[in-house]
Amino acid sequence: MSLSSSITTWGHTHYPFCDLGINCTSKLKPKVLKMKFSKNPSLLVSAVLTKQQTDAAQKKLAQDFKEYVVEKANSVNRALDDSVLLKEPLKIHESMRYSLLAGGKRIRPMLCIASCELVGGDESIAMPAACAVEMIHTMSLMHDDLPSMDNDDLRRGKTTNHVIYGEDVAVLAGDALLALAFEHIATQTKGVSSDRIVRAIGELARRIGAEGLVAGQVVDICSEGISDVGLEHLEFIHLHKTAPLLEGSVVLGAILGGATDEDVEKLRKFARCIGLLFQVVDDILDVTKSSQELGKTAGKDLVADKVTYPKLLGIEKSKEFAVELNKEAQAQLVGFQQEKAVPLIALANYIAYRDN
Amino acid sequence: MSLSSSITTWGHTHYPFCDLGINCTSKLKPKVLKMKFSKNPSLLVSAVLTKQQTDAAQKKLAQDFKEYVVEKANSVNRALDDSVLLKEPLKIHESMRYSLLAGGKRIRPMLCIASCELVGGDESIAMPAACAVEMIHTMSLMHDDLPSMDNDDLRRGKTTNHVIYGEDVAVLAGDALLALAFEHIATQTKGVSSDRIVRAIGELARRIGAEGLVAGQVVDICSEGISDVGLEHLEFIHLHKTAPLLEGSVVLGAILGGATDEDVEKLRKFARCIGLLFQVVDDILDVTKSSQELGKTAGKDLVADKVTYPKLLGIEKSKEFAVELNKEAQAQLVGFQQEKAVPLIALANYIAYRDN
Repeated sequence: MSLSSSITTWGHTHYPFCDLGINCTSKLKPKVLKMKFSKNPSLLVSAVLTKQQTDAAQKKLAQDFKEYVVEKANSVNRALDDSVLLKEPLKIHESMRYSLLAGGKRIRPMLCIASCELVGGDESIAMPAACAVEMIHTMSLMHDDLPSMDNDDLRRGKTTNHVIYGEDVAVLAGDALLALAFEHIATQTKGVSSDRIVRAIGELARRIGAEGLVAGQVVDICSEGISDVGLEHLEFIHLHKTAPLLEGSVVLGAILGGATDEDVEKLRKFARCIGLLFQVVDDILDVTKSSQELGKTAGKDLVADKVTYPKLLGIEKSKEFAVELNKEAQAQLVGFQQEKAVPLIALANYIAYRDN
Repeated sequence: MSLSSSITTWGHTHYPFCDLGINCTSKLKPKVLKMKFSKNPSLLVSAVLTKQQTDAAQKKLAQDFKEYVVEKANSVNRALDDSVLLKEPLKIHESMRYSLLAGGKRIRPMLCIASCELVGGDESIAMPAACAVEMIHTMSLMHDDLPSMDNDDLRRGKTTNHVIYGEDVAVLAGDALLALAFEHIATQTKGVSSDRIVRAIGELARRIGAEGLVAGQVVDICSEGISDVGLEHLEFIHLHKTAPLLEGSVVLGAILGGATDEDVEKLRKFARCIGLLFQVVDDILDVTKSSQELGKTAGKDLVADKVTYPKLLGIEKSKEFAVELNKEAQAQLVGFQQEKAVPLIALANYIAYRDN
């Protein structure tokens, strides 16, 4: 499936949180602001407001979202900290905690919680699934970094797991996190029917396996050194390597929050767009940022002779493609309560305009 | 927890299927036969039968169980074959299928199905879970065989997965099988309430992670080369390395089949005994059989300087311990419909008296 070919025109561009205090430095920074954020009337922004009023409201919105991100990240970090206790056998639990609590941006858990809240659920319902998607994400990074795969020694600004704990323990700690993700959803999700939990587990599992994350990784590995890889092939890798778990995060939140099937599918499309968007931006960052700025090895795609969007389309066209994907993603959120949609819109913008 | 210290005296010894056509050559072969197998009156065996009648009935029982094993293995193999289709990306699916369909004995799926049938469920209810436990088992073997772990190049009589597909693909195929196990239970289990499915998933996940299979493997790795490992430590390794998945297999069958909590716990104890039994026998086989007979590298525990039961207790005492564990396991089955318990009894005996 080619998502780029499915992009539709969307009347308005909504970028309410471009300046999130997360260094939105892209030239693609939008100028139009029409989105409501909170129930506070002072925050309602429209074309009738003056430039000063709009700027003030924009600043307030950015501040509100920054607070939202900090609050959610703190909740998620507390829940993750509680999910793996430091007990016997110490080495494996230390290894799991080392990577799980290494200070990731927690985008996937936030997407899961925001999606659940969008359809009327609350944070507590989504939290076990939110932790689960972060566990899976961490596992995939640990295994991807192994000497037999990307052979990376830097991740999230820290030495990679296998360098500290050994390759054997890093493989096993990844396996343990993968199993724990399912245990956590199955045993910790409260106040939700078992029907929804089973559906969420099936959904998450499908996003990981040989048609999901693993498919992307294996095709990526097999593509190294092949010079004639086309755009469709690249999209296959990216749609499978990054998008599945972002899709899983959003869809799990929606299912557990009680979304209708139709709304689940709209949110799935939203997630697929931001999944591809995430990877396009990753590719751009890989060639435009330093290792220190990224907190991981920069330029490694070039070294590995990997096919990337900048390589196929050039930097500027890649950035345009990112803007189109962001538009398409946000188009899926029309029809939901807009004030509840704001965190997802802001997260999509963050993914588009992040700089690491 | 030390299972050996919890062994209780059990009045009678039941070994109805010692000669299963699976080369029961142990000197511990029992002589008493009191267990019923089928509803056919000619198969009821008791102390009042003559020697000839007992021998004939024993032969018939062995034949019946052999047929049971062949029939169930065929069903399981068909279901496993259907569970991973050969599709794109081909390499990962080939790798998964290579190890999953490499002709294992399917003991775990059989335990799962037999346990489900014991409590009144039928094969179709347990089959997705039965496939799932075999997927997990296969994954654990693939990862254990990796160069960074046991570095084994022979498994089930065949070249190990990483030797054929590469270390990177073997790690990923293991990950994919682990995820598929949960997907399979969540999406393929029919005719069972979601409550039971969620409980089964939580149970399976717990048996895999850092307090289950992974714990056993990591403590095993960390114990290599340490000469003063005691019996308690050895039991920890074995109770975690092998027993968890056998426990999971039996308990999943029981949960999905609708067992009461009390019966689930009796079957859990049965499973823990045969789990430890399995490993004790494995240790014995490692020093008494050739690689060709085992279908995997023999004597590797000695080479790796691993602590084993024969090393700690001697061969004869290890065999006696195996007999005690088998007794204790079978004591848990008293109170269930005995004719339905026969496959589990026979499977326990097979685990005790197998020669590879």
